[in-house]
Amino acid sequence: MTIPSGEMLKTLLLVLDLAGTFVFALSGALAGVKRRLDFFGILVLSFAAANSGGIARDVLIGATPPAAISDWRYLVVALCAGVLTFFAHRAIERVHGSVLVFDAAGLALFAVAGTQKALAFNLNPLMAAVLGMVTGIGGGIVRDVLLTEVPAVLRAEIYALAALAGALVVVAGHLLSLPSAPVAVVAASLCFAIRVLALQRNWQLPSAASRKGRGR
Amino acid sequence: MTIPSGEMLKTLLLVLDLAGTFVFALSGALAGVKRRLDFFGILVLSFAAANSGGIARDVLIGATPPAAISDWRYLVVALCAGVLTFFAHRAIERVHGSVLVFDAAGLALFAVAGTQKALAFNLNPLMAAVLGMVTGIGGGIVRDVLLTEVPAVLRAEIYALAALAGALVVVAGHLLSLPSAPVAVVAASLCFAIRVLALQRNWQLPSAASRKGRGR
Amino acid sequence: MTIPSGEMLKTLLLVLDLAGTFVFALSGALAGVKRRLDFFGILVLSFAAANSGGIARDVLIGATPPAAISDWRYLVVALCAGVLTFFAHRAIERVHGSVLVFDAAGLALFAVAGTQKALAFNLNPLMAAVLGMVTGIGGGIVRDVLLTEVPAVLRAEIYALAALAGALVVVAGHLLSLPSAPVAVVAASLCFAIRVLALQRNWQLPSAASRKGRGR
Repeated sequence: MTIPSGEMLKTLLLVLDLAGTFVFALSGALAGVKRRLDFFGILVLSFAAANSGGIARDVLIGATPPAAISDWRYLVVALCAGVLTFFAHRAIERVHGSVLVFDAAGLALFAVAGTQKALAFNLNPLMAAVLGMVTGIGGGIVRDVLLTEVPAVLRAEIYALAALAGALVVVAGHLLSLPSAPVAVVAASLCFAIRVLALQRNWQLPSAASRKGRGR
Repeated sequence: MTIPSGEMLKTLLLVLDLAGTFVFALSGALAGVKRRLDFFGILVLSFAAANSGGIARDVLIGATPPAAISDWRYLVVALCAGVLTFFAHRAIERVHGSVLVFDAAGLALFAVAGTQKALAFNLNPLMAAVLGMVTGIGGGIVRDVLLTEVPAVLRAEIYALAALAGALVVVAGHLLSLPSAPVAVVAASLCFAIRVLALQRNWQLPSAASRKGRGR
Repeated sequence: MTIPSGEMLKTLLLVLDLAGTFVFALSGALAGVKRRLDFFGILVLSFAAANSGGIARDVLIGATPPAAISDWRYLVVALCAGVLTFFAHRAIERVHGSVLVFDAAGLALFAVAGTQKALAFNLNPLMAAVLGMVTGIGGGIVRDVLLTEVPAVLRAEIYALAALAGALVVVAGHLLSLPSAPVAVVAASLCFAIRVLALQRNWQLPSAASRKGRGR
């Protein structure tokens, strides 16, 4: 193999990050269309939903300026998703539950890429997994807070747990020195599968009230 | 000329930043008075609305501690605006639409100062303009989120676009090596004019629904 | 004494930080239980409420990665509080006004620890006190914003003022070169006492409306 593994990891991180940016931007833009934001508001929400997670990760590990600020590709990808959604949101919405599925894909990609980058910055493995989870759920949280909704991640269904599962697979692969690309694919698939299954089958974590039977 | 241009630019940035701090603090304090916050809550909101944009910019470009934290003048200016508003908010409000006009002035000053500082930290020109826009809209977003309102920037009227227009003028002046002070004046005036005209004439960007005629 | 004072200060800061983390996590988890979040949502809120203040402080003073990210103990302490609350929230709530009392204790501990750390990073004394206050109120603000409530700190009662009082005592002790441990105890006690008395006696700061008599 002629490509050094450091270079490959870097490329892998970039591709995961840009793909996650695109799908989270779609989810942000669709949420903006639903709340009847104007064109620029939709673009701002695309950017915020897509890049808040990565920006938070980079600020927290001290990698400033964050990739999403220093690299214009993150902006362009997010704006493309926003413009596409603005003009074709009916087509996008026709795919049933599309916002939630895009959101699940973004969650998976960001959880994996966030964990990889945190490990590359030498955080200890446990906190790298947590930071990957935070990266994954950060964009959705900012999207929901900007629309004054309690973030979906806090309310229901298996969400943060799916991100954490993917992040832990990345950490396990790192500790076992497995090659990062296949580990990333497995980790992202696991996260995505858990999240989508949780949506389809309406899996719920217990709330404190539900523990007591029909508590009120 | 005896003043070196680096020194002049630094002074210009400081003056723009403090003026923007004052007007954004007024807008934050007035919003706080309207929502019946107590005295300290109004001061906190003044500080948050005034300095969140600049703090976000400085954290993102890696200029920590942010100017608004390391330099006590930002605090004092914000608190003065808050105290003034607390005791004289009826007089301030008598100027019709004053919150919105102060907000427009803060937007213009911060968009210009934010772009200047991002350029000074060697961000690429496109992202410097975006960061200038983010700086301009950051304070208002935090103000609205703290009051659990969907940020004005996302909902209606030409807002982020005005900030971006001002930021792009600064970037153009930088690329053409024009003197920074007059460019800053033109850029801030353009941003302010667009925003105020948008308010007066009720200019709106299209929403996705409005594209389909009377969509609902 | 064999322990060097730098080492003692470091240990003191850690203990204050972890204790504040625990009580803020309890307050976050209890708020989450009340809003019927699921198990993982409660843990996320525990972590966010407990660590947002400290993370904000560390990002602002340039101490990245923040202690709450690089040190797994902050995570574990917050999760323990979250799990404890999930299973024993009725017992915890039985202590009348427990959320508010835990919140007051967290406020006191974080305001003191935040001021200490800001001074250790050579911020000027005034801004160190402000940063201590911001550290103290940051966790509660994020907790409330995530639950789409106007932050308690902005609405009513003596809250930010209590944090500021504690922070100013720390700064005064620092300027007078007094030993830091007893100063910290006095400062935290003062902050806690002011906050609890304000709750019990319903002390309020004036709002702009109340200045005009029975304004409406």
